[in-house]
Amino acid sequence: MSQQQRDALDALLRSAPRAQTRPAPEQQRTGFAAIMTRPAPEGVATRETVLGGRPALEFKPVAVATPRGHLLYLHGGGYVIGSPETHTALTGELARRSGLLATSVDYRLAPEHPFPAAVDDGLAAYRELLAAGTDPQAIVMAGDSAGAGLSLATLLAARDAGLPQPAAVVLFSPWVDLTLDGASMRTKQDADPIFIEDDLRTFADFYVAAGDRAQPLASPLFADLTGLPPLLIQVGANELLLDDAVRLAGRAGADNVEVTLEIGPGLPHVFQHHYGNLDEAGAALDRAAHFLNAHLSSARAELVH
Amino acid sequence: MSQQQRDALDALLRSAPRAQTRPAPEQQRTGFAAIMTRPAPEGVATRETVLGGRPALEFKPVAVATPRGHLLYLHGGGYVIGSPETHTALTGELARRSGLLATSVDYRLAPEHPFPAAVDDGLAAYRELLAAGTDPQAIVMAGDSAGAGLSLATLLAARDAGLPQPAAVVLFSPWVDLTLDGASMRTKQDADPIFIEDDLRTFADFYVAAGDRAQPLASPLFADLTGLPPLLIQVGANELLLDDAVRLAGRAGADNVEVTLEIGPGLPHVFQHHYGNLDEAGAALDRAAHFLNAHLSSARAELVH
Repeated sequence: MSQQQRDALDALLRSAPRAQTRPAPEQQRTGFAAIMTRPAPEGVATRETVLGGRPALEFKPVAVATPRGHLLYLHGGGYVIGSPETHTALTGELARRSGLLATSVDYRLAPEHPFPAAVDDGLAAYRELLAAGTDPQAIVMAGDSAGAGLSLATLLAARDAGLPQPAAVVLFSPWVDLTLDGASMRTKQDADPIFIEDDLRTFADFYVAAGDRAQPLASPLFADLTGLPPLLIQVGANELLLDDAVRLAGRAGADNVEVTLEIGPGLPHVFQHHYGNLDEAGAALDRAAHFLNAHLSSARAELVH
Repeated sequence: MSQQQRDALDALLRSAPRAQTRPAPEQQRTGFAAIMTRPAPEGVATRETVLGGRPALEFKPVAVATPRGHLLYLHGGGYVIGSPETHTALTGELARRSGLLATSVDYRLAPEHPFPAAVDDGLAAYRELLAAGTDPQAIVMAGDSAGAGLSLATLLAARDAGLPQPAAVVLFSPWVDLTLDGASMRTKQDADPIFIEDDLRTFADFYVAAGDRAQPLASPLFADLTGLPPLLIQVGANELLLDDAVRLAGRAGADNVEVTLEIGPGLPHVFQHHYGNLDEAGAALDRAAHFLNAHLSSARAELVH
């Protein structure tokens, strides 16, 4: 089944019409929302909230009386588009499979709010979780694409502010190099059914404008990652961003950070969105949920010693 | 406990006396055998056999009446030292934890038998398993260090000979670049408690002599890996060979091969040897065993469809 599923997904993604001229950010947001917005999975209750001064969406698995940890989620969309609503299905499904309480933050977007607004919002959200008395070892993070890069930037900013780190981080197809220097930016041009390089360049233009694209909080690939918690990175082999994931794993190892990198053949950017229609997506979400829970357990066990 | 375990292991490895002049291969083999040779784990029966015309050691978990798969194991030692006996504990423990029948091949060593003798022996062993009627989807492979590179070379040679691939491969700290071009060859000089670059250069000198070190069957990092089965790569962050593992994962992704890369902070080369004294080693072997069994199952499930 899975080869058929992968081929069908690839064809579906390639069938999306590509505008002759790039729409303005507001139009891109509307179009993305129209395609992406799906209800939360059954068994997950959502409610609007505020975290770190920003609107946020909370996901609670209704079957779990007392979730054993809190998941801070940062959605993707190139720092320009997307919202907790466009990622309700993905975030909700990760909350459901992990049994964790999740909060997805509506951080500010470029070009109206360029770098470092998103990092400031990520850090404010994490700070508020800590200020509310949440044990950092009961906090985990996850994000996809730009939201995965932003998750790392948030944790780097937290480390540099002297805050404790959470127990673990899951990164779906992380975008961590805004200079677009990975070899896969060229070698996966034909294989990637979603992006062309110019899409990413335009997002980077909006986010950092004339700023330095290689600065660590914009491109965490170029950061010293020392002290970060265990990372699980999942990426598709059919991605311009494949080498962002590979090089990030290498950077983590260089800095003595625990990391697991999973590369799925024939899979597109943030393939986890397609759980239910794609076996690999559900399996990847299960591994992500297992990873988060395993690290919540060991982190808390160490506290007891 | 684990930080103490890692520190103790690091100190132990650093305490090994380093000769002023490098011993001849025969002396290196004797010394390595004296340090490494341990009995097979309890619950694993060993017997001497022959596979592909070479002596071999077979490991059978006694509690398993009918192992569901056959593991072909290729030991490390820079293509110059080591034998199934030096790796009896590691191979036996992987057989025990996976419940698989394992055969570890005493492939020919350099400098007496330079490249491609080892690859010829690996391929002959794999060929004989197939010729005996073993379903390729019931075969898995594993190897460590040079034996991990040799596992890949064996599968590339098998592919190029038109043979079917096995179900999965586990690679512990693979050595896949005999040109020694990884950045970690410099950046992990102080962190690696076992190797200096010259150790590896000497092994490469013996193995390929005046030959091309970048040729794919000597350095599978530079091969087209298309068609290889799912790979699990485990490596320590305290290794000169860290970037062999990272770049191999990237190469696999580039060639659309399924790969999982696990990097363990503070861990040395082929840390799996130290199960029993190091929590990470046992956990890594459990994940390797799970990986092999999961792919045996899915491979055989696909056969049924």
